[in-house]
Amino acid sequence: MREEPDSPAAASGTGRRRGRPRHQAATREGIATAALEVARSHGYERLTMAAVARRLGVAPSALYNHVTGKADLLALLQDEVMGEVEVDGLRAAVAGEVPVREAVRDWAHSYRRVFAGHTPLIPMIATLPIAGAEQTQRMYDAVAAALGTAGVAETEVLPRIIALESFIYGSAFDVHAPAHLFEVAAAPGELPAFQAAAAACRRDIGIGIDGSHATDEGPAVGTLGVNPYADDPFETGLELLLAGL
Amino acid sequence: MREEPDSPAAASGTGRRRGRPRHQAATREGIATAALEVARSHGYERLTMAAVARRLGVAPSALYNHVTGKADLLALLQDEVMGEVEVDGLRAAVAGEVPVREAVRDWAHSYRRVFAGHTPLIPMIATLPIAGAEQTQRMYDAVAAALGTAGVAETEVLPRIIALESFIYGSAFDVHAPAHLFEVAAAPGELPAFQAAAAACRRDIGIGIDGSHATDEGPAVGTLGVNPYADDPFETGLELLLAGL
Repeated sequence: MREEPDSPAAASGTGRRRGRPRHQAATREGIATAALEVARSHGYERLTMAAVARRLGVAPSALYNHVTGKADLLALLQDEVMGEVEVDGLRAAVAGEVPVREAVRDWAHSYRRVFAGHTPLIPMIATLPIAGAEQTQRMYDAVAAALGTAGVAETEVLPRIIALESFIYGSAFDVHAPAHLFEVAAAPGELPAFQAAAAACRRDIGIGIDGSHATDEGPAVGTLGVNPYADDPFETGLELLLAGL
Repeated sequence: MREEPDSPAAASGTGRRRGRPRHQAATREGIATAALEVARSHGYERLTMAAVARRLGVAPSALYNHVTGKADLLALLQDEVMGEVEVDGLRAAVAGEVPVREAVRDWAHSYRRVFAGHTPLIPMIATLPIAGAEQTQRMYDAVAAALGTAGVAETEVLPRIIALESFIYGSAFDVHAPAHLFEVAAAPGELPAFQAAAAACRRDIGIGIDGSHATDEGPAVGTLGVNPYADDPFETGLELLLAGL
């Protein structure tokens, strides 16, 4: 691979090319993409400045011209991940092409699906200012426009977006709970209301107390993760939060 | 301080008493209390087996007779924290003394308040089986009984509890966002729907774009943390999730 003279790696003289393809030049955009690749391939516990630099084929020092450190890297990554949430339906709803309620429902499903794959980002997202997070800003604008189209009062638009997000983040964690989440060995007569509710819920989903299917279909799972209990509460809560749209 | 002959520290001969009060014997209950004290006084980053042992005045090895390690310690701690969530109102509602909707609303407020002080536990709670978590089980039973009293269908009780919890966890994170969370320097005409919604929301709360009060009252804050935007979305979402109770 020929090294372009204008690449940061070449300019700094720190390019590491021994058999490694150089995927991107060290721009903020390239760094975001590389960070996402590292997180996806190796998990968040392996996401370090050094790992991202390796992925880009540059020296770690080259990254610090563009990001100030791990916290900045995660902020960049969270905006990249936010860019994967589908907003086209929201724009179609504003254009009058699809019902708003359906579009917001699809957005919420997409948002949960995307962040179920990136739960380690959730605790920081909720407290991260959106200045500089362009994809996040664009997403907010699309949701705000859709809620406005549905007639939500202007002062209620942001509270409703934040309420939906809080619910979506909490629901994204749920996806990874094990199937025996609610298996309790209480004596007869103990926890009667909970035991009745859990049993009714299991009958409804068609699973045993350990979370397994009673049939030969194999272990019960949710649509996004192992937790068979995760989908019903998400649909239930989402419909309540979409009231009035 | 005189050492009681029946204390585990004395029995194991590992008591460390040089000037340190021995708060609890090394039982699971005592360990849970000590872990909560460490997390509260020094933060979750300082919560280690060694710190809990120091707090109890026992050798770290004494803890391993009762908890298997850090993960077990956190599970024990989360149940201890769950025990702080107020459920008396729920029991009063089941007894017909207060309206269910009001009781569930108070429970949700208490739950958010408690976990806003323990956000590092949230990612693990959602995926932690409730077997062995007695306070958590009792809380679920109290909420399930209250929802049953309100006429929620048995198959819907658990999904509604989980939906509420997901929302509460996400909302607990929000509490710690900085006041300039939604400060965006977009050019005129950019992000129009979001900018209008954020401005309307700020007018409603009475804060400037940087999150500060326009008056001399000092910086705007939420009821539980620094984020002035956190309370409205919680109230908005909660009322929607309580529909039909």
